[in-house]
Amino acid sequence: MCISYECDYHFTIVLRESLGGEEEEEDPQTSTTMAVSTIYSTQALNSTHFLTSSPSSSTSKQVFFYRRHQSQTNRRFNTIITCAAQQTVVIGLAADSGCGKSTFMRRLTSVFGGAAEPPKGGNPDSNTLISDMTTVICLDDYHSLDRTGRKEKGVTALDPRANDFDLMYEQVKALKSGIAVEKPIYNHVTGLLDAPELIQPPKILVIEGLHPMFDERVRELLDFSIYLDISNEVKFAWKIQRDMAERGHSLESIKASIEARKPDFDAFIDPQKQYADAVIEVLPTQLIPDDNEGKVLRVRLIMKEGVKYFSPVYLFDEGSTISWIPCGRKLTCSYPGIKFNYEPDTYFDHEVSVLEMDGQFDRLDELIYVESHLSNLSSKFYGEVTQQMLKHADFPGSNNGTGLFQTIVGLKIRDLYEQLIANKATAPAEIAKV
Amino acid sequence: MCISYECDYHFTIVLRESLGGEEEEEDPQTSTTMAVSTIYSTQALNSTHFLTSSPSSSTSKQVFFYRRHQSQTNRRFNTIITCAAQQTVVIGLAADSGCGKSTFMRRLTSVFGGAAEPPKGGNPDSNTLISDMTTVICLDDYHSLDRTGRKEKGVTALDPRANDFDLMYEQVKALKSGIAVEKPIYNHVTGLLDAPELIQPPKILVIEGLHPMFDERVRELLDFSIYLDISNEVKFAWKIQRDMAERGHSLESIKASIEARKPDFDAFIDPQKQYADAVIEVLPTQLIPDDNEGKVLRVRLIMKEGVKYFSPVYLFDEGSTISWIPCGRKLTCSYPGIKFNYEPDTYFDHEVSVLEMDGQFDRLDELIYVESHLSNLSSKFYGEVTQQMLKHADFPGSNNGTGLFQTIVGLKIRDLYEQLIANKATAPAEIAKV
Repeated sequence: MCISYECDYHFTIVLRESLGGEEEEEDPQTSTTMAVSTIYSTQALNSTHFLTSSPSSSTSKQVFFYRRHQSQTNRRFNTIITCAAQQTVVIGLAADSGCGKSTFMRRLTSVFGGAAEPPKGGNPDSNTLISDMTTVICLDDYHSLDRTGRKEKGVTALDPRANDFDLMYEQVKALKSGIAVEKPIYNHVTGLLDAPELIQPPKILVIEGLHPMFDERVRELLDFSIYLDISNEVKFAWKIQRDMAERGHSLESIKASIEARKPDFDAFIDPQKQYADAVIEVLPTQLIPDDNEGKVLRVRLIMKEGVKYFSPVYLFDEGSTISWIPCGRKLTCSYPGIKFNYEPDTYFDHEVSVLEMDGQFDRLDELIYVESHLSNLSSKFYGEVTQQMLKHADFPGSNNGTGLFQTIVGLKIRDLYEQLIANKATAPAEIAKV
Repeated sequence: MCISYECDYHFTIVLRESLGGEEEEEDPQTSTTMAVSTIYSTQALNSTHFLTSSPSSSTSKQVFFYRRHQSQTNRRFNTIITCAAQQTVVIGLAADSGCGKSTFMRRLTSVFGGAAEPPKGGNPDSNTLISDMTTVICLDDYHSLDRTGRKEKGVTALDPRANDFDLMYEQVKALKSGIAVEKPIYNHVTGLLDAPELIQPPKILVIEGLHPMFDERVRELLDFSIYLDISNEVKFAWKIQRDMAERGHSLESIKASIEARKPDFDAFIDPQKQYADAVIEVLPTQLIPDDNEGKVLRVRLIMKEGVKYFSPVYLFDEGSTISWIPCGRKLTCSYPGIKFNYEPDTYFDHEVSVLEMDGQFDRLDELIYVESHLSNLSSKFYGEVTQQMLKHADFPGSNNGTGLFQTIVGLKIRDLYEQLIANKATAPAEIAKV
């Protein structure tokens, strides 16, 4: 029921479900049958007259939505999309806590312009960050057990039993379809589940946390997925920096905490990386023999081949194996220098391209020299990567591969988003035929 | 005494020499005083009327030439060049015998177009090769001792005492100045010195042999110099191929011959490489662990920086350190593959760029893929290196770095020649002032 082609938010989604021989012949235009018991119903959905705009929004949505029960298998779904000029692009970012997800998110939203802020006038302990283009939600909000509950049951936050994947799935699915949801808030300060907050469907939804690719249903909603893979050595060095230097924890308690998390981490978090379209691996440097300091990092960007709208970055020559030490006649680097590697490889049986940077920049503006030799960056102008990095020179990792690759992934996501939108703009006629 | 600026071979060189207080006031235009006792006087020089053309040549040369005696130190030389629109460019190529000099020469002359042949109607055992642009003379022709003489005195052909560097210098100098010479011929079949052959000054003179950079005076005449540095392992493998398979020598006699030459080689030949503008090193492969076969080669092109009219080739990024395995998604290679390295380095205290190729091409037309990633090749069109290599696919080394780098050096010499000529065409007025 789209008035004009330029519509942004007007669309109709009809999910009709028939059980057994019970054929429903309802007119979808007038049907008001809805089941939103486990997804927090939105204000838009509260209206029974779908052709009129909901009071809270200038956009109107026509939705016939049935809750899908896992026990029902023989059901028939008819999907009719009459106009889908705008749909939310969903990005998943998986990583352990304290692994730089928030820095990554700040770099990503910066690529789209404008800073990300918590929802205005809402819970000050909200984990959500909203900018013009992006909304980042933290998957800790889908904890089904609060801190006390986890203690009582003896499960960690990493354990799937402490998380509500059904709700995660329903809400991400709703947001992806352009439907606002009321999402719970896990309060990291109190360890309790706070009252929900309203999340409007953004242009780009980022779900970041421990389990964005754990549940198959959620995984399939992702248009792009990233896994931050921090090696144990580096994770330990970072935890010491944060928990010992900043929070006054003891070395022993940090060690114990890492050890305690490890079995669940290995069982539930780590396996997700096999599903990621891009993995950023952070390892100790190989430029300093037997380095234990963990200050100089070797960072690898593993990019899956054959992902629609995602064309891996390459160095000099696509598909061959290259190592490059840019330090030389044109670029002077202090010890231990900088080394890049680029090569095709396989990762969990997937064909991938791997770009690696070991070492760190002495001066961030030298990055332009490196940037000029990387191809497929999806930048909009020459030097955009360097400009982004200089803009956030104070962010952790700005002088090494973590900052560089996070920025590059940000550009790739922008490119993916733009391609998806451009593709949808030319495709609605075809979709309507399905 | 140049009639017109376009003249190619008309010029006047006057070398006037005055001893002590004896001032000679001869008119150079009419002087007939000459001393050419150790340089074989050319037919052109036999004429006493320098303004008229010599009967043997369509070009006229005015030369007042005094032999320089090493014992005379206080002499004054006046050099007057009235026209030097064309001068011979002199290239030195040093290498041990059986190290691929003749293949290199065939590749070089091919770059200039046309095949090289021995002088027409001359000694069939002449070592000289003449093409439109180039004349290649073999420095063995300057042996002062023939085979018997060397045996009697107990010196090898590598020993400076078996070679006439004075004559080599005088004749190369004469040729460089555009004066024809009568050069002796060392007959490799008989081991004797045959009657001399007339060598006209070519556009490009290549002096190839054991000692092109040994004598400082000769060395200073070189516009560009190349050293073919074949490692002992590879030299041994090649000698076995040639002397055992083709000439029926025994393994022991080959070993003995190499051992016998080694002290003189190390003393007189090897040190010349420090003076070379380009060195082609041929080493065993590093792609096959403990390879002893010597069939797969690792070849390094060491290019001196700061040489006028010579700009080193580079891979991807000038002045940085790069390794590149082109085999991958775009190029499939069989075992052991191909690996390139490029890096700045120092060589005998000179700043150099080193380009290395290990391995060999499965199919020669794949070379275009490699060529497209090399810069500063001095080719005249895209794919010229590959075209040259395909043209001579039957030459030894066409599937590895020896052929590739020889071809590249050929292109660089053509470029150097063209720059030198272009520079001289604009500079005669300045030269006349000297």
